[in-house]
Amino acid sequence: MWASRLPGMTDARDLADRVQAGDLRFYALEDEADADTATAARRELLRRETDVAFDVVGDYGFDAAEAETAIENMVGTVQIPLGVAGPVQVNGEAADGEFYLPLATTEGALVASVNRGLGTITAAGGSTARVTESKMTRAPVFQVEDVSEGKAVADWVRGNFGKLSSAAEETTSHGELLDIRPYVVGDNVFLRFSYDTKDAMGMNMATIATDAACAVVEEHTPARLVAVSGNMCSDKKPAAINAIDGRGRTVTADVRIPRDLVEDRLKTTPEAIQEVNTRKNHIGSAKAGSLGFNAHAANVVAAAFLATGQDEAHVVEGSNTIVTIEARENELYASATIASLPVGTVGGGTKLPTQSECLDLVGLRGSGDPPGTNADALAEVVATGVLAGELSLLSALASRHLSGAHEELGR
Amino acid sequence: MWASRLPGMTDARDLADRVQAGDLRFYALEDEADADTATAARRELLRRETDVAFDVVGDYGFDAAEAETAIENMVGTVQIPLGVAGPVQVNGEAADGEFYLPLATTEGALVASVNRGLGTITAAGGSTARVTESKMTRAPVFQVEDVSEGKAVADWVRGNFGKLSSAAEETTSHGELLDIRPYVVGDNVFLRFSYDTKDAMGMNMATIATDAACAVVEEHTPARLVAVSGNMCSDKKPAAINAIDGRGRTVTADVRIPRDLVEDRLKTTPEAIQEVNTRKNHIGSAKAGSLGFNAHAANVVAAAFLATGQDEAHVVEGSNTIVTIEARENELYASATIASLPVGTVGGGTKLPTQSECLDLVGLRGSGDPPGTNADALAEVVATGVLAGELSLLSALASRHLSGAHEELGR
Amino acid sequence: MWASRLPGMTDARDLADRVQAGDLRFYALEDEADADTATAARRELLRRETDVAFDVVGDYGFDAAEAETAIENMVGTVQIPLGVAGPVQVNGEAADGEFYLPLATTEGALVASVNRGLGTITAAGGSTARVTESKMTRAPVFQVEDVSEGKAVADWVRGNFGKLSSAAEETTSHGELLDIRPYVVGDNVFLRFSYDTKDAMGMNMATIATDAACAVVEEHTPARLVAVSGNMCSDKKPAAINAIDGRGRTVTADVRIPRDLVEDRLKTTPEAIQEVNTRKNHIGSAKAGSLGFNAHAANVVAAAFLATGQDEAHVVEGSNTIVTIEARENELYASATIASLPVGTVGGGTKLPTQSECLDLVGLRGSGDPPGTNADALAEVVATGVLAGELSLLSALASRHLSGAHEELGR
Amino acid sequence: MWASRLPGMTDARDLADRVQAGDLRFYALEDEADADTATAARRELLRRETDVAFDVVGDYGFDAAEAETAIENMVGTVQIPLGVAGPVQVNGEAADGEFYLPLATTEGALVASVNRGLGTITAAGGSTARVTESKMTRAPVFQVEDVSEGKAVADWVRGNFGKLSSAAEETTSHGELLDIRPYVVGDNVFLRFSYDTKDAMGMNMATIATDAACAVVEEHTPARLVAVSGNMCSDKKPAAINAIDGRGRTVTADVRIPRDLVEDRLKTTPEAIQEVNTRKNHIGSAKAGSLGFNAHAANVVAAAFLATGQDEAHVVEGSNTIVTIEARENELYASATIASLPVGTVGGGTKLPTQSECLDLVGLRGSGDPPGTNADALAEVVATGVLAGELSLLSALASRHLSGAHEELGR
Repeated sequence: MWASRLPGMTDARDLADRVQAGDLRFYALEDEADADTATAARRELLRRETDVAFDVVGDYGFDAAEAETAIENMVGTVQIPLGVAGPVQVNGEAADGEFYLPLATTEGALVASVNRGLGTITAAGGSTARVTESKMTRAPVFQVEDVSEGKAVADWVRGNFGKLSSAAEETTSHGELLDIRPYVVGDNVFLRFSYDTKDAMGMNMATIATDAACAVVEEHTPARLVAVSGNMCSDKKPAAINAIDGRGRTVTADVRIPRDLVEDRLKTTPEAIQEVNTRKNHIGSAKAGSLGFNAHAANVVAAAFLATGQDEAHVVEGSNTIVTIEARENELYASATIASLPVGTVGGGTKLPTQSECLDLVGLRGSGDPPGTNADALAEVVATGVLAGELSLLSALASRHLSGAHEELGR
Repeated sequence: MWASRLPGMTDARDLADRVQAGDLRFYALEDEADADTATAARRELLRRETDVAFDVVGDYGFDAAEAETAIENMVGTVQIPLGVAGPVQVNGEAADGEFYLPLATTEGALVASVNRGLGTITAAGGSTARVTESKMTRAPVFQVEDVSEGKAVADWVRGNFGKLSSAAEETTSHGELLDIRPYVVGDNVFLRFSYDTKDAMGMNMATIATDAACAVVEEHTPARLVAVSGNMCSDKKPAAINAIDGRGRTVTADVRIPRDLVEDRLKTTPEAIQEVNTRKNHIGSAKAGSLGFNAHAANVVAAAFLATGQDEAHVVEGSNTIVTIEARENELYASATIASLPVGTVGGGTKLPTQSECLDLVGLRGSGDPPGTNADALAEVVATGVLAGELSLLSALASRHLSGAHEELGR
Repeated sequence: MWASRLPGMTDARDLADRVQAGDLRFYALEDEADADTATAARRELLRRETDVAFDVVGDYGFDAAEAETAIENMVGTVQIPLGVAGPVQVNGEAADGEFYLPLATTEGALVASVNRGLGTITAAGGSTARVTESKMTRAPVFQVEDVSEGKAVADWVRGNFGKLSSAAEETTSHGELLDIRPYVVGDNVFLRFSYDTKDAMGMNMATIATDAACAVVEEHTPARLVAVSGNMCSDKKPAAINAIDGRGRTVTADVRIPRDLVEDRLKTTPEAIQEVNTRKNHIGSAKAGSLGFNAHAANVVAAAFLATGQDEAHVVEGSNTIVTIEARENELYASATIASLPVGTVGGGTKLPTQSECLDLVGLRGSGDPPGTNADALAEVVATGVLAGELSLLSALASRHLSGAHEELGR
Repeated sequence: MWASRLPGMTDARDLADRVQAGDLRFYALEDEADADTATAARRELLRRETDVAFDVVGDYGFDAAEAETAIENMVGTVQIPLGVAGPVQVNGEAADGEFYLPLATTEGALVASVNRGLGTITAAGGSTARVTESKMTRAPVFQVEDVSEGKAVADWVRGNFGKLSSAAEETTSHGELLDIRPYVVGDNVFLRFSYDTKDAMGMNMATIATDAACAVVEEHTPARLVAVSGNMCSDKKPAAINAIDGRGRTVTADVRIPRDLVEDRLKTTPEAIQEVNTRKNHIGSAKAGSLGFNAHAANVVAAAFLATGQDEAHVVEGSNTIVTIEARENELYASATIASLPVGTVGGGTKLPTQSECLDLVGLRGSGDPPGTNADALAEVVATGVLAGELSLLSALASRHLSGAHEELGR
């Protein structure tokens, strides 16, 4: 690893000279040198221009070539502190047992807070977790002449699922087309394609497969493709369609916690937690015009996503989470349902070294057996983490500890 | 830095033994050893249990003590590939000049795509950028007896702004209370506090200050505080209140690009880009019930946030972005308006080593002069990056290059 | 009809006396007298108490008994001014020809405005109109033990469509169960039932059929019915699920208007109308967090609903309308897509005398041949009316005539 | 009134002949004859063309001239059955005492259901009701050069409230400009004007006043008015801005009902009602992406609006209602908060004969003393009606009576 952090500086300086002389392009350095030298050359160039040495950015722990499909114009890495919470008992369908939850975050108190929740859940016998829907979507938009043609196109699509799925599935060895839902708006036809993408998050797979299907639509109907994504997918936007119909995994974790455990561990009562949930997560979110009925699901999703190599912008979908709390005579019932959690254990950022190590910690790196079960399990673990974060924060609020906890932990 | 990456392993093993013996708690290792040794001990413990060595996670480039306010149960760092786009000419109010945009992401093609957009913007003379609103919000929820008491409490709050701002501002040297907006729903009173938090993102500051003001409300009125955050803030949830009223910076970047530049650089026409924007970003998002009328603003926000030490979960707010495109006779007008971009250049994750280096690259680390201008400038630069990402992706879609580009770049 | 308006006042006074004496209940007067006398007795009682004589309310034009399934505690009728717009040429699938559009409203200028739009549409050759989806929905909510049971229940429902549709369809001679979509949220299972209800709006039919199916669910699974409507229907609420998936008819009307006709009739240009639509209906609605991307669709829906005996509260669903406008070289393309228009031509308020006359005017009273085509046709006509209203108002705005028009017409 | 229903048929036939001969326009009949004769002539024309005699439509109970500012192309009236619920005790700020609630509807069981709720509320001592916000809004959209100009315009507006309010208020004797809120999106500037319009619903007043203020903006800044309504008002669309910030009256009614009264009158328990409200109105609405967290508020709003001459399309705003229910040891707490209820007791449809009689029944016709209190009171009464409707329906659902009640009442 020495080499990766201290590439031949002579080479890097030469390359930098050549870029400054106009003989070489900043983005094309990898054509002239190994990946680590290329990143060093870029740091050298930026240092010459801005005086920023990028000492720590350049001090990364792996061969830059391993990141080549993940980044362009690479100069090094950003290092996000990684904490570990758990282990937590998850009684899932795919995840059954004890799991650590790696969390990468810069938000002090978050790991401690989730950890408290996970401990409580485990003490209560673990969470129950299930993936209730699973699909990756892509929705192209077509232009048609008018609504009569739009309806005809929609009808043609409904009647030719086989033709379209053949075309789509030819582009992928794993993906399976589950459904195509047409929506007509004026002279626009949106087709929402849903795929089973197994252990891959699958967005790129879905795009490529859909593009192939679009060609078939264009061949057999008068519709003209405007864009392979028409925003009814809906990728990385806060959209009701995802909150309602799901995208990625729709996953719930719930738990029943005996009353004395609530008092012992969470320092409050079931009734107080229910009240905070109702007034804050339900009524407050309702009044705010929100699609997220939770306290801070996005915090846990973001931290778990960073740690395990998910697409960080997908935290937008992950925030579509509804939390329910019911105080009962002898226990507290709590649930967290994430409507749209795009996760994978193969491909994309999961292959990067630190992320790969984190997936190993959870025991869910690579393809599951059968395929899809590793990503399902990861979703069940993340949902349990979200549930833990909610229980902990709602309890803290119920006992007015929020800002106290933050002050104490030094933020 | 040797020490930070290879702390005395003997010590770490001893500590691990003590944790296994039950003499020491996993989370309390920093009480017994320096931070780096503590992280090594945790990795040792996890290795014993799961066989995951965390070689790269443990190979971070700074003293773990620097992260102590950002994380608990630290075991190392997650390393996210960092690329650099730009420089881009920004004609902002706070950001005026050429700026590099550091982007940390695992999504291949993103940096290249943004870079293409930034190049086009610069060739067109740069973006115009403005922060049109700025505030950090926190909205506690109180219980009252009934709506007659609720109205009385709301009226009292409206009539006692001075008393409340004194209490709030006593807790902070920088923050300034701008406004309190009451909302009554049944026997709930929500008070949305808005603060000027200068160069800090300011959420913790806002929480502490609001907590102090809540005590005053409770002292002078019959209202009972239920939670210092009642979700009308609304933090890290996809909520219309943020999309409408703003949270953090409300910032727009726009640009006019001559027609020949559109054709040269973006390989399509103003009319084609406008059509994709209308049918996808406007009509598609409308039909999807979305608060985000953009193609992939969250991608750029997420990558820039990771690089510059922002709170990653705030990408949820950042996705509340509206893009407008107008094809004109000789040019293309394009704009991106991010309604709610919580950013800071001091505090939180901005202090971490790699993030700090990235802020140096942008030239916006630490407090601005006058205070607030660095965070304003960062918002203007990020908005320009979002605009660039939109221009590039919309153009790619307009020329049906999307999946092609991805395939080529190997995702 | 004499009798209906002047029922024996002696009888009415006697009845009123008996109510005042406590011998008879206000709501039970129909048990003691014919319907008209009962309404007269109520007016007499209210006159004695409040001095309001209800002269005009009592002066209705039909036998009160005809309204007995529509109202309780009847005292007469409210009379809403009825205007007629059109005729308009509709090139629909179910509605093909010229149609008058009756509009009952108290909003001055509305009928005139719609009329101008209809005239323009007809001059352009008529609207193209299509119903692209059709279904009435009802979504009960069940409680389950936990999410593992929830998933099992959802799976059972997916696997037993036949059993459930038999039970549901046994309750109705016309309705047909099309689909059941399960959604699991914590320990709640929502089942969205969709029915083809032919020419009936069908909500009551859907409720009764769903209730029967719920009994089957309860019999075969551990799920417990909480409410036959769980708000995912979603009836008379501004809900994204209706805007996305539809409820009642999803219907579009569009038109291409030659440029000179735009200038002649609408007194503006295609470009100006497009600009208003983009900035107001698209960007303004986006920024407002709206599910309605139109100028005043609800006005036309409300007035047409009142006239034709639809459920007036369904104007909420009707406002989920997206309008698109495209200025082209020689013409203007305009469309209005109503996502969720619950309409019927049989049952409910359609049977009342004035409403029935209005349906006769449109030529769509009663069952269509085949069943469903009358309600489809009504949807196509209403959508054309909405399109006309949009064209007219957008044009007026484009020429800054809005408040002028209102002033002139005396509102 | 004889004349109004049987105008000289000779005259009407003559007029009809002239229209058919092309000497007279259908919409211009009032220029040649009194209003009743004109409506008769239209009915005659429609009869000749469609064979629909409009016997009951033509049998209206007042002089057609009274409706001339409410309708064009008048042919008669639509008659909606009117029932009366109550009286109910309202402990409001403006409405203090017992009130009847007139409801015009074609939905069987609605009046009976509301009546049951009102009876329960009264038995419990009455509702508490308050208007917590009051304003009518209008939001024009302007085009600017770019965002730098947009920000400058917004700043100018903020700094020149006096100038703008003078211009606005010059157009009205009653209206008062309360606030102007600027929103910048790309090259669009939206200005949301809020007015106190006293007892008038005030939308037309707001439009005219805003139009005057827009002229001042155009005179002093480079902004160009695109449309006097830019949809951030937001009128008659299901928009979050109204649900959050209010439009018309923001009004709450709440009540505490002793447990035995719940059991006696509503035939269920506080716990059962709370459960239905939580699972249906909160969780179901959350999952449906709704802005309405209620069971059927729109039903009551629509029926009360029809009866009292409100703008029927405003039921869209009225459906933005949040219902809260809390089961307590000895009682049930219930509230209904309507975020945006545009109501008036002067102007518009309130002047029509039957509507005017209904306002007399409520005791709230015309201007209040002080001005605004009659419309406030009407809002408090309507909110109480909505609360009653919710209590009754939630209770019915809790006891699985919904479809039973409908079947019984014959819908």
